[in-house]
Amino acid sequence: MTISMYQASAPRFVNTLNNLSALLDKAAAHCDAKKIDPAALTAFRLYPDMFPLNRQVHIACDAAKNVMARLAGVEVPKHEDVEQTFPELKARIAKTVAFIQTIKPAQVDGSEEKEIALKIGGSDMKFKGMEYLLGFAQPNFYFHVTTAYDILRHNGVEIGKKDFLGKY
Amino acid sequence: MTISMYQASAPRFVNTLNNLSALLDKAAAHCDAKKIDPAALTAFRLYPDMFPLNRQVHIACDAAKNVMARLAGVEVPKHEDVEQTFPELKARIAKTVAFIQTIKPAQVDGSEEKEIALKIGGSDMKFKGMEYLLGFAQPNFYFHVTTAYDILRHNGVEIGKKDFLGKY
Repeated sequence: MTISMYQASAPRFVNTLNNLSALLDKAAAHCDAKKIDPAALTAFRLYPDMFPLNRQVHIACDAAKNVMARLAGVEVPKHEDVEQTFPELKARIAKTVAFIQTIKPAQVDGSEEKEIALKIGGSDMKFKGMEYLLGFAQPNFYFHVTTAYDILRHNGVEIGKKDFLGKY
Repeated sequence: MTISMYQASAPRFVNTLNNLSALLDKAAAHCDAKKIDPAALTAFRLYPDMFPLNRQVHIACDAAKNVMARLAGVEVPKHEDVEQTFPELKARIAKTVAFIQTIKPAQVDGSEEKEIALKIGGSDMKFKGMEYLLGFAQPNFYFHVTTAYDILRHNGVEIGKKDFLGKY
């Protein structure tokens, strides 16, 4: 009895992306209730040279999409980073979830030792599949979803860790 | 070829905890350089009813310690939440890493279906081992480490995602 690469990847990304989408619903409802311009949240940064909320969502989506495509050995679909509003960001998440759901367990299982080469911040990086998934892609993914959460929380949106963890 | 429960847990927690310890070094150096009272950072919250930095570190440590102990079926060691300063918080992290390193792969491997029962926020929760590790404990752990990072970044400490991801 062990964990498959699929079990450690697709369902984790899909659950957390759906939780992120629900967080954005609460943020949009907060803006409605408080008569706040939603762009005050979607463009908010925790520090001037950090990414704003909408980019945190883009990057979280790409982190999940890219690892699934690379492990499965399919072309990484290019999703342009154009979404700004809450409905657009939710659509980006839905598009990402739909892509992940096209990947079958058999395409990803057995990729533990697969060579993964990519460029990160201009540097060439090489990983084995399991190390890439567990040591790089998962922390990176949770990093951006959590930072999106922290931006909303910092701005007074009434969300809690239960919303972040969602269904498990 | 698959992933073992040990591979998906102990090395991930240990790497990220060591990265968190290095983030605290940078924060302490920042306080020295800028003549800032370190307590201005360790007691900082992103919102009045969020936990401050020192509690984020305590909770990240406990999230890792508790899942390792529960999967291994050993008593969960109680670490009192008394650390306030950067050196104390680094010692708490080191104590957590030392505990995780006492757990042998054979104690954790095969725990995918193990029944895990715990109380979270007053509610009784039941998990199977793999679901507990991948669906609850890992996102929860990364949540608190990322929030610690976001608190430091929000306060101008010069850290980047590279520091968060550290060695992988």
